[in-house]
Amino acid sequence: MSFHSMWAELLPVGRSPASGGYRRYAWTGADADCRTWFQEQAEARGLAFETDRNGNQWAWLGDPAAGNAVVTGSHLDSVPDGGAFDGPLGVVSAFAALDELRGRGARFTRPVGIVNFGDEEGARFGLACVGSRLTAGALTVEQAHRLTDGDGITLPQAMESAGYDPDALGPDPERLVRIGAFVELHVEQGRALDLSGDRIGIASAIWPHGRWRFDFRGEANHAGTTRLADRHDPMLSYAETVLAARREAELAGAVATFGKIGVEPNGVNAVPSLVRGWLDSRAADQASLDTVVTGIEKAARAYAAAHGVDLDVVRESFTPVVEFDHALRDELARILGTGTELRVPVLGTGAGHDAGILSGRVPTAMLFVRNPTGVSHSPAERAAEDDCVAGVTALADVLEGLACT
Amino acid sequence: MSFHSMWAELLPVGRSPASGGYRRYAWTGADADCRTWFQEQAEARGLAFETDRNGNQWAWLGDPAAGNAVVTGSHLDSVPDGGAFDGPLGVVSAFAALDELRGRGARFTRPVGIVNFGDEEGARFGLACVGSRLTAGALTVEQAHRLTDGDGITLPQAMESAGYDPDALGPDPERLVRIGAFVELHVEQGRALDLSGDRIGIASAIWPHGRWRFDFRGEANHAGTTRLADRHDPMLSYAETVLAARREAELAGAVATFGKIGVEPNGVNAVPSLVRGWLDSRAADQASLDTVVTGIEKAARAYAAAHGVDLDVVRESFTPVVEFDHALRDELARILGTGTELRVPVLGTGAGHDAGILSGRVPTAMLFVRNPTGVSHSPAERAAEDDCVAGVTALADVLEGLACT
Repeated sequence: MSFHSMWAELLPVGRSPASGGYRRYAWTGADADCRTWFQEQAEARGLAFETDRNGNQWAWLGDPAAGNAVVTGSHLDSVPDGGAFDGPLGVVSAFAALDELRGRGARFTRPVGIVNFGDEEGARFGLACVGSRLTAGALTVEQAHRLTDGDGITLPQAMESAGYDPDALGPDPERLVRIGAFVELHVEQGRALDLSGDRIGIASAIWPHGRWRFDFRGEANHAGTTRLADRHDPMLSYAETVLAARREAELAGAVATFGKIGVEPNGVNAVPSLVRGWLDSRAADQASLDTVVTGIEKAARAYAAAHGVDLDVVRESFTPVVEFDHALRDELARILGTGTELRVPVLGTGAGHDAGILSGRVPTAMLFVRNPTGVSHSPAERAAEDDCVAGVTALADVLEGLACT
Repeated sequence: MSFHSMWAELLPVGRSPASGGYRRYAWTGADADCRTWFQEQAEARGLAFETDRNGNQWAWLGDPAAGNAVVTGSHLDSVPDGGAFDGPLGVVSAFAALDELRGRGARFTRPVGIVNFGDEEGARFGLACVGSRLTAGALTVEQAHRLTDGDGITLPQAMESAGYDPDALGPDPERLVRIGAFVELHVEQGRALDLSGDRIGIASAIWPHGRWRFDFRGEANHAGTTRLADRHDPMLSYAETVLAARREAELAGAVATFGKIGVEPNGVNAVPSLVRGWLDSRAADQASLDTVVTGIEKAARAYAAAHGVDLDVVRESFTPVVEFDHALRDELARILGTGTELRVPVLGTGAGHDAGILSGRVPTAMLFVRNPTGVSHSPAERAAEDDCVAGVTALADVLEGLACT
């Protein structure tokens, strides 16, 4: 099955007719359809299919027990109303690259695996990379059991409804020790390749990033009858903090975003009692990120105090900088720089990935495919078909260079 | 049954244990419990109970067909997590005032009615005073049929589920023509009486007020990888507009509030595609309100343009200034100023009421009971028991002055 056919088969799964975006949330029906598709692709190619204890799917050419395996792949789930490429491009390209290698008559000297990590986006339970985190021991079973979606359904309940055994959840060092290299191909989520005019890039590092919840608690009141001077309106402190976040991020060359909000009681004619805003911030290095977040929190506290509003700031998640394996990165650059016309720049990224989680345990690298507008986590996310094909070729070259004679 | 007992009976109905606030939304179970309570109070006093075609409840002493009736009452529904007093104080005080008049041995020369208007707050279907608007012909049947709650349930469907006949909805001029005066007692929703040191006030006017929906449409994008300069983030324009609303309202001595917001996709790691904010604004006169809203909209358009964000502004509802009947107002002041130690100031209010809707068709007046903190639409809403008792006495005096020999 060609790249094009695989892509067309996945395209309608979990797509919202209203928004045109994808809603492939972990352990839902759309997720199950993606998983069935993965298993069918594995079996159609005669690959050994298995699901690990954390719900990640694997397809093997050769026996992984032999060790020093080369693994590629990504994820199939999506953010709310996400695009078609973020995740699936890496999985579809993995199968297509294997087909290309077989077409080239490649002789494999190492086992090759293709993986679909579960719940990468964290859209449902609020924590990204749950499948790879559990496998790597970066998320404990107790923490995973406490994950709850917006309807109060826990992760174990959701997995059980989807036909998986939540009692099996846990670290999987036996699996990781068999992997000699992990290479994740992903659509670029910014415009660096577009600006430099290159189709393919290699990742250097993932920026440190985190999520902070800002709870501004004021006093609910009647919007028509309460004098402005008598109000403790948390929406004002929130608004000032949103603008402060933009200023602090600009000063530091970082990014900071308030993209999610919860308001109580959220009535047109009520001054809110609570405005809860989530800050996502990332920077090239830890010191810059600290400067940005400290600056935003300090400003928010001053604004809240001025309005007689209480403020709690909770760090909900944090991932330190990830430097990808230098030797593997250089090996990819060597492979891709030989016998091709490609120039392959090395670039950092602000996005988290399963590759970032695994990099602490396994030599890991990433390939990026050009995204002409840089739009990501949106139905407008795009990659040109030519660039996708170039990505498949590059991934096949990398697998051939690493796993074949 | 005493004021105190009636109050205690209603207190637990529809109260959220989590917030301590009330969730008595139209045509829900909590609303049905309030309605049962009203009917029981009517029947316990031997009053003729009826529900009109629009779901408003009435309790009659004497035959309303005789005409020139004096009606008092208010509503029993609530805003989300509202307080105990807004609405119920007027209904409970009506029954208690009638009891007091009977205790005084009053001889009635006009029919007296007590009313519970349906869906005053508009918490469920987004439009306030649905029961009185329909009765007064200020809301057409077609408009009422289009009202839909957050779960997609229409007003007729909700009424039918609650056991009412939605086919009966419509204007009710025969009912209104029998009413010679309507007096609504209500907890004050500001601090005017507290600041002046008075227990009871009489309404002069309801400020003109309206609701405007601001839709800021930007471009969804990845919060980690999209450069600040490449963003079209509608949250920034929204935040700037929230602050502009406060400034414009302060300048004009008016009020302006953004208390409700909807964000898409509302993901922590996504720049929003849409931020929808609802503005509630009110001022003492039309010119001031126009100045405030025009100023906010102009500022919002400039902010949106600066971020490459589209802005639509839709006026969702508007109520012009309501001047209560001068003759009735003066009559109330005369009754309450005679033989009591009360000083009864006359004051305007920013809140809408069924009395405001009826005032176009029936001579209408309002009494306010002091609210020591001015807090309203919140579980913290309060009135001292002494002041509530003073309210019952004042209402009994008014009914005696208007309807007895």
